[in-house]
Formats: sequence, structure tokens, C-alpha cells
Amino acid sequence: MPRYRLDLEYDGRPYAGWQRQADHPSVQQAIEEAIFRLSGEKVSIRGAGRTDAGVHATAQVAHVDLTKERRADTVRDALNAHLQQAGERVAVLRAQMVSDDFDARFSALGRHYLYRISNRRAPPALEKGKVWWVPKLLDTDAMHEAARELLGRHDFTTFRSVQCQANSPVRTLDRLDVARLGDEIEIRASARSFLHNQVRSMVGSLKRVGDGGWKAADLRAALEAKNRAACGQVAPADGLYLIGVDYPES
Amino acid sequence: MPRYRLDLEYDGRPYAGWQRQADHPSVQQAIEEAIFRLSGEKVSIRGAGRTDAGVHATAQVAHVDLTKERRADTVRDALNAHLQQAGERVAVLRAQMVSDDFDARFSALGRHYLYRISNRRAPPALEKGKVWWVPKLLDTDAMHEAARELLGRHDFTTFRSVQCQANSPVRTLDRLDVARLGDEIEIRASARSFLHNQVRSMVGSLKRVGDGGWKAADLRAALEAKNRAACGQVAPADGLYLIGVDYPES
Repeated sequence: MPRYRLDLEYDGRPYAGWQRQADHPSVQQAIEEAIFRLSGEKVSIRGAGRTDAGVHATAQVAHVDLTKERRADTVRDALNAHLQQAGERVAVLRAQMVSDDFDARFSALGRHYLYRISNRRAPPALEKGKVWWVPKLLDTDAMHEAARELLGRHDFTTFRSVQCQANSPVRTLDRLDVARLGDEIEIRASARSFLHNQVRSMVGSLKRVGDGGWKAADLRAALEAKNRAACGQVAPADGLYLIGVDYPES
Repeated sequence: MPRYRLDLEYDGRPYAGWQRQADHPSVQQAIEEAIFRLSGEKVSIRGAGRTDAGVHATAQVAHVDLTKERRADTVRDALNAHLQQAGERVAVLRAQMVSDDFDARFSALGRHYLYRISNRRAPPALEKGKVWWVPKLLDTDAMHEAARELLGRHDFTTFRSVQCQANSPVRTLDRLDVARLGDEIEIRASARSFLHNQVRSMVGSLKRVGDGGWKAADLRAALEAKNRAACGQVAPADGLYLIGVDYPES
């Protein structure tokens, strides 16, 4: 059976998240239904990152096996046509035929997230639902400096949802950069994998550093507490984007 | 009576345009109702650009006279609170007290628009309603070159809605630049003032150059025809943003 890699963009707002659920629309279901309209096959697709309700993606990756071989561009265009017809906010940026040993989730070597904060007095009118609105001026230099405390291999229990199902709370954080572009703050996080709610938990705590509530040492103490109760506010889903997944050169 | 200048951002999708209408929601009405909730006054505000249905703004400018003097920041924050409560997609970026001779519309020396095209095979999922989706690859160098034909002072009858109410079809176009940024094409247009639908009419004709249907000479012939029927497709409202208004240094 030919295997296809799908690179996906979506607006997370209408969805209860990536993963298929019984009673709520999901990104996975939207794509699986488009595949059913294309091929008549009831397939189950696997994604690189199980994004939460309201979380966006500019570069999610999934794979699917189809019985019949089709041109990759035809798969992309046909799925997009079905997605648009169904009113879904999901698009297939690229489809590629890949070898059987490619697995969107288990082959991934790294995941990259962007978190966007609108840091101005006026609420976002054009970007509502796509940024976290923080009206109080944040000190992004202090946030970036404090973020150094979280880099590297740590037990991230503090920054992990109590619902997280990962076996281990230990992860290696490769990047956590905070930069200001005018009224917008961009936080970029990279790791081989993340715990459930890890990026939003780290961002919420960094925001606390930015508004003067915490020093870098408080962030470090929160990490070392290895206790969910030590975490700052969890940032809302609105500002979070899965922007890239790395795979071995094929 | 103190006069306030308001700098405004809005998502044009829910509105029939800037201008107040009897039966449809408008940006003007949204702001006038927020002012009524602030001051109890039924005012009429004037905007620099009467944007059409679905057209966005990152920097529309309006002015309003209020009976009672209030701190400008208070006006901004109170209007934003009322706009948010009413579920409007409009934000006041800045409020400033200005002299009585400031008129948002008649004092304006220049207006700047941005038109965004998403030029890729996949439909926009994240930016739906905020870009014009053109799946066929456009030649942006040819578009930029052809756009030179429209610069300067011309009779723009070809690029003017038949509903345009301006006395004269003559305008001076100061800037019309076409640039590619990856999958996105940005077209920037500047003039003292524009005719009704002028930017969207020019963009639609430039797209025809970009897809090879027209040469620069065809665009020039369309301009010289001074005939609305000579215009290419009118680009949809989705991609158009009012991004700046110039005033004399005060």
C-alpha cells in the first residue's frame, strides 16, 4: 500500500484539537473524512503533534496509507477540494509518497512551536483567536534571559498538564527564544518532543517574568519544584502554532 | 467641544463596510454605538477612507467631537471595552485630542493600502477571508513592471466602480509596488486619494498580467481606454487593508 506524507495547515479555533473525539470536531476527523470522499476508505491517520483545542498549525505532518496509488499532487488537490466543500479550516500544503518506514509521529526528530503574544493596550481585532492579548507591557529581555533556565534536559513536571500521558516527565528543550517585533512578542520553542501543555505552561510562566511578578530565579525554582502547582498561568491556546517537524533526511 | 482622533484596526468580514447603513452592520456604527455607551452622545464620526464590505484596516483614522473632555487613554480603553462587550471586531489603537481644524477625511494628505494574495496550490486555512487565494503561479516581476504604467496622474475611469461618486476620475497614483514573500504576494498602493474600488480594480488587472493573460501594454491600453469595461477582474475585498493615512505635521 502506498504511504503518503501530508503537510498540513489549520486554524485550530473550530476544533477540539488534533485527535479524533466522539462528540467534537477534530482536525484528524476532518482529514479522514476528506480521504474517505477521495478513496472510499476509512483510514486512520497519524500526526506528528497532537495539538490541543484551539491550537493552530502552519506545518503539522501526518501520514496515511491508501490502497490505490495516486499522483501526490492529485491527492493534495482532491483533499483540499473536499476540505473546502465541507467548510473545514484545514489545508493540505503538500502530499508526498514516502517509504513504508516513514511514521509522522515516531520518525520525528524535532518539533518547533511558535507562541504569539499581542502586547498592546488595544485588544486584537484582526488577530482575535490567533494571539494571546496581554495589555500590560512585558519586559521581553527579562523573559528571554529567564528562558535560559529551562534549556537542556530537565524533569518538566511543573510545566506538564496533569492529564499528560507521557511515561517520563524528562524532556530536552533545545530552544526557547523570546523576541519583540513592535507590539508582538514571538516565543519559539524547539525539542525532540514536548509534554502535554508544556509550551503553554512555559509561556505562561515567562509572561509572569515579563510583567515583573517573577525573577529568573523564581522560574528556576518552579522548574526545580517538579510540582505542577508551582507553574504560573497556562497561556491560552490562541497564540500557539505548530510550525515545523524535523525528520531524518530521506 | 474637544475633538479626538481615533486610530482604528478592524476585521472587515462582519461588516458591510465603513459607512453606516440602515440594515447592515458597519464599522462606523460599531464605533458610534461604543461612543454612545461611553458618553450618552449620539455622534457621527468621519473616517479617512470609506472602506467597502469585507475590507480590513490596520490604521484607519476617524475623528469625533465629544461634549466633555476626557483623558485620551481613557477614551481609548473605554471604547475598546464597549466594542469587546458588543462582540465587535474593531479596536481603537490610539486616541488623541486634536485641534478643531483636524478632519480625518479632509485633512488627509495620503492614503496607503496593502493587498495580500496567497499564491499557492493549497487554499488558505489560517488566513481565509484575509487574503485573495490565487492557486496559479503569478509572475510578480511582470506585475511590478506593468504597474509602472499606472503611476502618476491619470484618468482612472477604467479602474473605478460605476457606483463611484467622486466628481473627477483623475487621481495621482504615487506608489504601486508588487513583491513576493514566499507564497504571499504583497501589493502596496499609495495616493492622496483613491476612487471607489480603484485598488481592487488595479489588483485584478495586475493579476491578469501575472498569469500571462495580459502584457504591460494591455494594462496601458486598459488605462487609456477610460472605459470601465476595459478593466480586468475586480479583486475580492478579502485581501485589502487600509494600512496608513498621512496628515500634515501638527
